Amino acid sequence: MKILFHGQGLDSDSWLAGIRRQLPDADARCWSRKLEADWQADYALLWHPPAELFQHQKALRALFNLGAGVDALLSLPGRPEEIPLIRLRNAGMDRWMSEYVLYGVLHFGRDFDRYRIQQQQRQWHPLQSRPRHSLNVGLLGLGAIGAEVATTLARQGYAVRGWSREPKSIDGIDTYAGRACLDAFLAGCDFIVNLLPATRDTRHLLDAARLAALPAGAVVISPGRGSTLDQDALLAALDAGHLRGAMLDVFAEEPLPAEHPLWSRPEVIVTPHIAAPTLVAEALEQIAADIEALEKGRFVPYVNVEKEY
Amino acid sequence: MKILFHGQGLDSDSWLAGIRRQLPDADARCWSRKLEADWQADYALLWHPPAELFQHQKALRALFNLGAGVDALLSLPGRPEEIPLIRLRNAGMDRWMSEYVLYGVLHFGRDFDRYRIQQQQRQWHPLQSRPRHSLNVGLLGLGAIGAEVATTLARQGYAVRGWSREPKSIDGIDTYAGRACLDAFLAGCDFIVNLLPATRDTRHLLDAARLAALPAGAVVISPGRGSTLDQDALLAALDAGHLRGAMLDVFAEEPLPAEHPLWSRPEVIVTPHIAAPTLVAEALEQIAADIEALEKGRFVPYVNVEKEY
Ligand SMILES: NC(=O)c1ccc[n+]([C@@H]2O[C@H](COP(=O)([O-])OP(=O)(O)OC[C@H]3O[C@@H](n4cnc5c(N)ncnc54)[C@H](OP(=O)(O)O)[C@@H]3O)[C@@H](O)[C@H]2O)c1
Ligand SMILES: NC(=O)c1ccc[n+]([C@@H]2O[C@H](COP(=O)([O-])OP(=O)(O)OC[C@H]3O[C@@H](n4cnc5c(N)ncnc54)[C@H](OP(=O)(O)O)[C@@H]3O)[C@@H](O)[C@H]2O)c1
Repeated sequence: MKILFHGQGLDSDSWLAGIRRQLPDADARCWSRKLEADWQADYALLWHPPAELFQHQKALRALFNLGAGVDALLSLPGRPEEIPLIRLRNAGMDRWMSEYVLYGVLHFGRDFDRYRIQQQQRQWHPLQSRPRHSLNVGLLGLGAIGAEVATTLARQGYAVRGWSREPKSIDGIDTYAGRACLDAFLAGCDFIVNLLPATRDTRHLLDAARLAALPAGAVVISPGRGSTLDQDALLAALDAGHLRGAMLDVFAEEPLPAEHPLWSRPEVIVTPHIAAPTLVAEALEQIAADIEALEKGRFVPYVNVEKEY
Repeated sequence: MKILFHGQGLDSDSWLAGIRRQLPDADARCWSRKLEADWQADYALLWHPPAELFQHQKALRALFNLGAGVDALLSLPGRPEEIPLIRLRNAGMDRWMSEYVLYGVLHFGRDFDRYRIQQQQRQWHPLQSRPRHSLNVGLLGLGAIGAEVATTLARQGYAVRGWSREPKSIDGIDTYAGRACLDAFLAGCDFIVNLLPATRDTRHLLDAARLAALPAGAVVISPGRGSTLDQDALLAALDAGHLRGAMLDVFAEEPLPAEHPLWSRPEVIVTPHIAAPTLVAEALEQIAADIEALEKGRFVPYVNVEKEY
């Protein structure tokens, strides 16, 4: 079995070593233009590959996306649509994502944003922070990662609610489903956490009207995908004083352009898409199991592009 | 039964209301110089009281300290030493303290300190943060609060060790006891968390030599008592680049004087003694139970001043 790897920004050596460990019988190689023309891979493990790759590889039986979000791969020109696409479903990312969101909730919930300003002014002024059970954290998206983040935050003592397409039941979480109840959902959120994928339907879901539906003083935490949030509307809501702050890991354009006004907002934390990195061992465990299932003709959860994106 | 209340910086109204709820038969009053001379309380609930209070109150049978740390009360001139002193033993503070420490560990552990600098420089540069199980968090103090903080951090996935006077066994924590193994304890700590009380023995325990015993790049988190940390030695270790940063809630002098250099260090988070506020309901539940035990002549855990301080 031949396995092709291309991971932009990933450490190729540890991935190749990992593939050889998980799939010792496979012939695993990194993609390059110089691969012999007759070396045709069965499976490709990809993160932001060049479009060119597909012109050379004509025997691929499945594409594995080395992350949870398939948006970049889907928008790649020339992607062979007939080849099944498989994404990472959690694979250990939930705990990193939970840490990221928890940091944001603690930062604003425990008033560390205000203490930072006071520190700059050399002011000693204790504040009465709201107890955790009175802080409402709303998750947009209760998928492979979102559902776990919701559970972690609830266990931490916050009042957690979640929103998805299909109705769900998750212990300790108030669940909402569908557009009809989105405004009611938002109206109760001190924190709104974007864990939605980038699709037609989620594009600019958090626009000016939806941000206005949040209670005054709310905080936006966005580690899902940048397309969900209308960044101009966010800046306007911050300027108007309606929102207290934001913590953003994903953006309409990445890297966030150096001249973008978000960089210099003191009430915004900007991080460079690091909320939940892909974990080599956990990812390869899932991929190896999927390959085994494919080889045996068993069920593998493909991405349903038509229905989902 | 007569109960006297004095709580500097606390909300007297909610405390008095709380006392009347927990002890409906008690006559509860706030201290003032104008209290009738013959109104002599049985019990006093105190936080940073004026020394004068003891000149007027001559029938007190126990003093309740409205916090975990009794250092301020112990150093009050004229404190009647023969009257038993009882402190808050956790009373819900562990969860607030755990949040505080967790925020500090996430801040440096997930490189939010570095991302903040990069944000100021408009730099998009993902870092490889160390996974939680590879981060060693060491707690100085495994008491009513420290032991719970240790357990919370271990559950979060960090490698946790704790240090106390007497040997202890706590699930999932590497425990160390006594001075003889302090340097070995410190040598393995990426984070050192001070949750020791202010006593003769703990004064400047974290001095230049002990800070040097920490591995390069370590972080000091100090929400215990300020006297434990030699602040000049901390500043020197930061200047030397031996320590990466610090998060400080308690200081040698509080409020931290406006001219103090700690305020302006970018790698130091300064907060005004807010890590774990006293919680009215939880504190009064413990105090009411203690009073009931006292009234019935049963055991109540007094502070053993001679032995402990
Ligand atoms: N920043 C980072 O480092 C990082 C790392 C990992 C993942 N991510 C991103 O995090 C997000 C979540 O990942 P995941 O694996 O949890 O995704 P997922 O399993 O696909 O879950 C997506 C969730 O969003 C809901 N959803 C999708 N479209 C919706 C719509 N139109 N209306 C309402 N709900 C909708 C889904 O509802 P149903 O359950 O009803 O289908 C589901 O609950 C993705 O965007 C991913 O790219 C970011
Ligand atoms: N910043 C805030 O908002 C805030 C809020 C609450 C509490 N605090 C502070 O947090 C600290 C911890 O509170 P706590 O209620 O957990 O205290 P505690 O129950 O008295 O526990 C103290 C711990 O320190 C250990 N210890 C004391 N002296 C020692 C020594 N010389 N050598 C080694 N270990 C020593 C004790 O060891 P043994 O167990 O062996 O006796 C014990 O484990 C206190 O300083 C308290 O004032 C701060």
